Amino acid sequence: MDWIEVDTTTCPVAMTLGLLGEKWTLLIVRDALNGVRRFDEFRRHIGLSEAVLSDRLQKLVAAGVLATRPYREEGSRPRNEYRLTDRGWDLLPVIVALKQWGEKHLADRDQPVLQIAHRDCGGDVRAELVCADHPGTVLGVHETRAVVGPGARAHTAV
Amino acid sequence: MDWIEVDTTTCPVAMTLGLLGEKWTLLIVRDALNGVRRFDEFRRHIGLSEAVLSDRLQKLVAAGVLATRPYREEGSRPRNEYRLTDRGWDLLPVIVALKQWGEKHLADRDQPVLQIAHRDCGGDVRAELVCADHPGTVLGVHETRAVVGPGARAHTAV
Repeated sequence: MDWIEVDTTTCPVAMTLGLLGEKWTLLIVRDALNGVRRFDEFRRHIGLSEAVLSDRLQKLVAAGVLATRPYREEGSRPRNEYRLTDRGWDLLPVIVALKQWGEKHLADRDQPVLQIAHRDCGGDVRAELVCADHPGTVLGVHETRAVVGPGARAHTAV
Repeated sequence: MDWIEVDTTTCPVAMTLGLLGEKWTLLIVRDALNGVRRFDEFRRHIGLSEAVLSDRLQKLVAAGVLATRPYREEGSRPRNEYRLTDRGWDLLPVIVALKQWGEKHLADRDQPVLQIAHRDCGGDVRAELVCADHPGTVLGVHETRAVVGPGARAHTAV
């Protein structure tokens, strides 16, 4: 079966984008990966309205990407902060891949805004294509090919 | 400077999502990476209206992710097909990272819809975090840390 004939309702790229494929959602994940946890911090840093932020945070909690944890500041009512779950941390390769594409093609490469660093040595962390059977090998895009998998169902043309 | 104090208008993640952070746009890139080239093929396979598809293709051409190439089928008027540029191919790690997150957390892992395979050996291609200084080392997310870079400017709170 060719890709064009495959029903993409079960495509994991489409499923992930159905959940996260909205600019604000992935910017909330980016900030959470950078240690932002509180509603007002997300709101001010990303520049979102309370209504949109509240909706997106609820979606991320429902999706198991963020989990709430109560906190209370002296003299304030109890509130929730938002922490990444393991599922949320698994999005780091997506964010790093978006970051490095933007750095290469859109931003000022010599003036990075944020570096994701290897804890051990401080080296730059990159999202690279590797072969699961030779994990020490970094692959160029043209060393890969797309193959329709056993979960593919035929697409019903619109 | 803490991340929360950084002005994110020059953040490469935000810049990339400003260009591509819309579900349909990344699904067009996914299909292009899988060899889809023609307007009607994208329209039918992704299930998009002509108006939305036309708008998104124009944006991707303007962004240098796709390039047009004329073709003419017997008895039809000349048309353009859409091919990935090198800049477009550079998005493969983003798509692979979205795919593997969806496979792990949303889809049926034992029934992949599409495999991205190493051309040499057929092994599964993954987007893994690697340290640029030790490219043979695949890193876990918690072996990384975020560091504000020299391009960071202070954020003006809203």
